[in-house]
Amino acid sequence: MTTLLDSPPATCLPEAAVAALSDRFGDRFTQNQALRDQHGKVETYHAARSPDAVLFAQSTEEVAAAVAICAEHSIPVIAYGAGTSLEGHIAAVRGGITIDMTGMNRIVAVNEADLDCTVEAGVTREDLNLFLRDKGLFFPIDPGANATLGGMASTRASGTNAVRYGTMRENVLALKVVTPDGRVITTAHRARKSAAGYDLTRLFVGAEGTLGIITEVTLRLYGIPETISSAVCAFDDLEGAVATVVQAIQIGVPLARVELLDDVQIRAVNQWAKTDLAEKNTLFFEFHGTEAHVREQVEIVGAISSDHGGGELNWASSTEERNRLWKARHQAYYAALALRPGATGWSTDVCVPISRLAECILATKADIQASAIPAPIVGHVGDGNFHVVFVVDPDRPEELAEAKRLNSVMVERALAMGGTCTGEHGIGLGKIDALEAELGDAVDLMRAVKLALDPRNIMNPGKIFRLPA
Amino acid sequence: MTTLLDSPPATCLPEAAVAALSDRFGDRFTQNQALRDQHGKVETYHAARSPDAVLFAQSTEEVAAAVAICAEHSIPVIAYGAGTSLEGHIAAVRGGITIDMTGMNRIVAVNEADLDCTVEAGVTREDLNLFLRDKGLFFPIDPGANATLGGMASTRASGTNAVRYGTMRENVLALKVVTPDGRVITTAHRARKSAAGYDLTRLFVGAEGTLGIITEVTLRLYGIPETISSAVCAFDDLEGAVATVVQAIQIGVPLARVELLDDVQIRAVNQWAKTDLAEKNTLFFEFHGTEAHVREQVEIVGAISSDHGGGELNWASSTEERNRLWKARHQAYYAALALRPGATGWSTDVCVPISRLAECILATKADIQASAIPAPIVGHVGDGNFHVVFVVDPDRPEELAEAKRLNSVMVERALAMGGTCTGEHGIGLGKIDALEAELGDAVDLMRAVKLALDPRNIMNPGKIFRLPA
Repeated sequence: MTTLLDSPPATCLPEAAVAALSDRFGDRFTQNQALRDQHGKVETYHAARSPDAVLFAQSTEEVAAAVAICAEHSIPVIAYGAGTSLEGHIAAVRGGITIDMTGMNRIVAVNEADLDCTVEAGVTREDLNLFLRDKGLFFPIDPGANATLGGMASTRASGTNAVRYGTMRENVLALKVVTPDGRVITTAHRARKSAAGYDLTRLFVGAEGTLGIITEVTLRLYGIPETISSAVCAFDDLEGAVATVVQAIQIGVPLARVELLDDVQIRAVNQWAKTDLAEKNTLFFEFHGTEAHVREQVEIVGAISSDHGGGELNWASSTEERNRLWKARHQAYYAALALRPGATGWSTDVCVPISRLAECILATKADIQASAIPAPIVGHVGDGNFHVVFVVDPDRPEELAEAKRLNSVMVERALAMGGTCTGEHGIGLGKIDALEAELGDAVDLMRAVKLALDPRNIMNPGKIFRLPA
Repeated sequence: MTTLLDSPPATCLPEAAVAALSDRFGDRFTQNQALRDQHGKVETYHAARSPDAVLFAQSTEEVAAAVAICAEHSIPVIAYGAGTSLEGHIAAVRGGITIDMTGMNRIVAVNEADLDCTVEAGVTREDLNLFLRDKGLFFPIDPGANATLGGMASTRASGTNAVRYGTMRENVLALKVVTPDGRVITTAHRARKSAAGYDLTRLFVGAEGTLGIITEVTLRLYGIPETISSAVCAFDDLEGAVATVVQAIQIGVPLARVELLDDVQIRAVNQWAKTDLAEKNTLFFEFHGTEAHVREQVEIVGAISSDHGGGELNWASSTEERNRLWKARHQAYYAALALRPGATGWSTDVCVPISRLAECILATKADIQASAIPAPIVGHVGDGNFHVVFVVDPDRPEELAEAKRLNSVMVERALAMGGTCTGEHGIGLGKIDALEAELGDAVDLMRAVKLALDPRNIMNPGKIFRLPA
């Protein structure tokens, strides 16, 4: 544990609360400025906002005790996992106490026959998969970052595998949650399905910590496929790439991953990862199954892509090659940054019905080309979800303003196409207005639920929507 | 439209509300006793409770107008689809107005490339599938009864295909809902995934009409598989049957259906459907995929079942034979009733982690054998979900009491095994105490959400939980 080196500067926490928290948690409750700043720092363009104190929790009971104290004094509480969220979710916009969950990193149970496990919220997805590997099991949801499973549940994360395995929405079976008044509840048990009352599990998945703090997550697991095979295929045009995916899904090919990298992103990857991919709109495929079934999927997809202007499927047959390929995909963000040394990146996302995806991406590319900002595009094509990474000069505020304008246009376009303002990054601070534009009066229902469960508005306040003052 | 033949008997509806509803809806608002009784009749053992009036709605706007009038006068409102729910969901336990949704039976849109469709809530699953067939698409969720899609969403229905395709939870993309104050909201749009705020879709799916009335449902669709193949396999013991399914799922065989019929149920089916199945615990399989992939799945499953005491896989290769097989499965309930002429049936369900399924079913069978009530068992094994059909003499109240006792023991056992009191039938009136036993304090959160969205408690009151008076 970090030791307190300096006595903290004055904060606006009530003395009685500080005394109660210090008494209960010793030096795991800290007002150390460096630790506060570290926990208020956010990704992308959102301003850092440090909490007044940080608590390093080690158990559900501790989280419950801390929340009870905060509730008594109406102090905001923010749960902190890996700090990798992208819409300012962890910024302490109203001060308060950030509870660092990374000490809660125990794997509570793995039930092999049931293909499920229960983990504390601070376990990261990579640690879980490392633990599972010897059992022949894996947890598929892969947002890129090595996020914690509590954080992934809270933001309804997904990523490259969602086309086959779904998102956190489909893969969380149950949650243990500390409610805003400091009670501990269980939203469900381990049955694969249940029709028992309101779906509290799905209510907390994606609530971004505004309704309570997730302390344990029960997850679906999958057997590691007998065969995993990857390939890339460059297309003459974007429409052909998207049409390939539509047709493959429609005839039931169970694509495990299908990722689009546009020509700009491929150029960035080539420079960054020293690959020599054709600088065209390109699909990265992954197939899972038995050897024979993977072979069949590949044949079908090869035929469909060549019908749609796709080149030859280039194979990564060895595990090593496959890892190199997906590493290139996963490092797309850093490759994009390297396009412009000294720049910072802002990754945004929208999601549209797949029939509108090519049109949506092409219009977005036209907007980008008309601006001065490099902005490669990567997409989870099977879901209709894509990301733009705006690579901006941090010393030129007009660039951020331009990126914001481009982002707004992109969100408006996605909504006009029947899509959503965010497929997987969440609302946080960045898309509050976009959510209003998307769902209108339905946001009132969210507010009503929020105020019913958290009448003091202490759980991660200021995120998702505005509340009446 | 039914014409009003008799003037209605006095009910406790406020005159002003009756006037407003009659004025707006003419003879589609009726207090006719026969229609009231028809809409208050429920399946299984629950007492019929007629509403004070019935309204035949034809559009979302009409439902909204009716709910607004009811809200003004604090009149209970119950949505009615096919009337096939099993836990008394549609009983008008506090009177009020039942809105019959079956006139809202338009298919609003089918988006083939996106594999989705939007339908009004009164469309039945069979009508939808009939409409989709020529397009090479289908909607998989199949609870047996030809329920409406609004009703299926409201009870979070599933059925025989859930092991592969999920339940209504996974297959509803968005809902149009009339809120308890008569507003119309949309919970989401057509994107495959979204991280935009609270998951209102999943909040209404399974809310049993207690938070609002679903008027339109946007659903995921699937391409009709190239090859569909079915087989039955009789097992020496139940453990072997369950172990076969566990192993097949673990190695990733994408079973489309895997249903267990116990020896008692097989005997009933043989008598009812004139089949000659071996009177043993038997699995009914269905495989979907390309011809080669189905062949491979069958080989793998054949090998696994013979390792676990399964006999030969008996094939239904033609569509006709396959339909006959699944008809036998789907008529299990009627076959069970025929075991005891003049008897009535009560189908109940629990769901447990699959590792406990054999143990749970065997203990339940022992309880049944120790009682005098015939009660065959059918199970959606891949989900850990099974049904007991108690076949009771309606003239002997002690039999119903005994069935209730057996049901309670079954629920307690399922909860002790980490399961749920209902996998797919819902809570309704019948499992209110079971829900409390299962989720404890979490039910308080459900109540808080209910009161936040429906402060007058007019939406299907008396279901799922008790509210403070």
